[in-house]
Amino acid sequence: MVSMSDNKKNDKSENSLRKETIQRVISALIVAPFVVFCFVSYSSLVGLVATIVMISTGEFFFTTIKRHDPWLSIVYTAIVTTYPVLYGMAFRNNSTELLAVIFMIGIVFALSKVKNREIITEVYFSYTVALIYISFLLSFFIPIYDIYGGAVALLTLTLSWAYDSFAYAFGMTLGKHKFGSYYSPNKSWEGFFGGIFGTFIYILIYQYVANTVFKKNLHIDLFLAILISVVTGVFDSFGDIFESSIKRHYNVKHMGNLMPGHGGMLDRIDGLLFITPVIYILLGLFY
Amino acid sequence: MVSMSDNKKNDKSENSLRKETIQRVISALIVAPFVVFCFVSYSSLVGLVATIVMISTGEFFFTTIKRHDPWLSIVYTAIVTTYPVLYGMAFRNNSTELLAVIFMIGIVFALSKVKNREIITEVYFSYTVALIYISFLLSFFIPIYDIYGGAVALLTLTLSWAYDSFAYAFGMTLGKHKFGSYYSPNKSWEGFFGGIFGTFIYILIYQYVANTVFKKNLHIDLFLAILISVVTGVFDSFGDIFESSIKRHYNVKHMGNLMPGHGGMLDRIDGLLFITPVIYILLGLFY
Repeated sequence: MVSMSDNKKNDKSENSLRKETIQRVISALIVAPFVVFCFVSYSSLVGLVATIVMISTGEFFFTTIKRHDPWLSIVYTAIVTTYPVLYGMAFRNNSTELLAVIFMIGIVFALSKVKNREIITEVYFSYTVALIYISFLLSFFIPIYDIYGGAVALLTLTLSWAYDSFAYAFGMTLGKHKFGSYYSPNKSWEGFFGGIFGTFIYILIYQYVANTVFKKNLHIDLFLAILISVVTGVFDSFGDIFESSIKRHYNVKHMGNLMPGHGGMLDRIDGLLFITPVIYILLGLFY
Repeated sequence: MVSMSDNKKNDKSENSLRKETIQRVISALIVAPFVVFCFVSYSSLVGLVATIVMISTGEFFFTTIKRHDPWLSIVYTAIVTTYPVLYGMAFRNNSTELLAVIFMIGIVFALSKVKNREIITEVYFSYTVALIYISFLLSFFIPIYDIYGGAVALLTLTLSWAYDSFAYAFGMTLGKHKFGSYYSPNKSWEGFFGGIFGTFIYILIYQYVANTVFKKNLHIDLFLAILISVVTGVFDSFGDIFESSIKRHYNVKHMGNLMPGHGGMLDRIDGLLFITPVIYILLGLFY
């Protein structure tokens, strides 16, 4: 009896897993072209970054502080989203001043709206993490696009898609040796190394296609391709575990439900947020 | 009886107030020369900023997260202090990359040390606020010194001393109309405007002495002097209320006990942290 019911349960969970995987692929295929299209110009790229920041921080605030005050979440989403817009459009050379001013505006707003010493630090936590982790880190896309062009920026974005997909595939099929991360226990070393290997192959194919079909002039050598793959694996994992730890604190499975099978926008970009600044630094050093 | 006991209480509280004021003045007179001395060179200024960041963040972490893990507070103090050192010494033109990397290092450290989903967000709150509010904002002193020279940097530092002293004196003697701030109920409009007026007079005297006695070449016109005084009053108050709100959450009167009569280092610089980036921006626009 026990083994039968176990079998049934396994069948069911395999079915729902298959269904989720199919959902993930279909959602990704629908959303991807719109995202890729925004890489045609600098302004549309800034718009894309701002839109992603707005949706992700909205989800984040709705998970963390909305229960205290819905209006607070909405105003904070607006404040945090001003960073990529103003940075991209007017203050490329004054990013630190811009960040300082936006930080202080958000703090003053909290002081004027939240008259409760029990929850005020939670508001500070939520606001500063959204500002730095989501808005500030994702905005590194803007100089990547501006300095290295759309092809490199699109590669940076899709790196995390490639890593996630390969890590998911390898982890699901071969995953035996778990990481042992407290906040994200399902990660396996097989998924990690498979993801890095897949990312490396992806970079080579991307470069080949970009240079031959689209006549771009990418010149990522093998050393840099390996470096980028490893960095992607490491930082994608950390970004993902960081977001997981916040979800576990708030006892939610996903930050939102924007794309069926993927969870919310923030669940989709959690690793990308840690990858983007590091890729920007690597490009400056080795490209 | 009631009025006698009230009188006694008043006498006692006036006595302790007088004692505290004398303590404040003596402490300030002892510490001030050491601080001023650090303005002789760029390197010593960076050292001063790093030292102030180290002491303040240490106090901050000892108030907020030490009870969970003392080592965590010490390592975080070190991580946060690397920002002014590396920024001042090597990465003046790469401050955003530096901030992003230090932010991620602190997050990864939390993920590896804190295996408790209840307190992890408090660690994030404490770390990101210390990094941005204390380390990042105070580091604006470094470009102020580098671009505008030691005399302007010293003026910026002493602006908040001048404002605090005048606001305290005016508030104590004339203060009747309270701000009504939830987190810092003792501020009065008399103190606020008296502080701004005193700061304005202080700027004029400082400039006169710097130009005649020390042969500097300051040229702060009346418009800029008024602007700086008002900005100092507004941002000093916000910075102070922000720090108060955190102290109230943790139910402490001071963050530390470094200087008798002043509380801790962070209690002393809470307003300065909000003033520094704004003065840097004003100098860029009008000086």
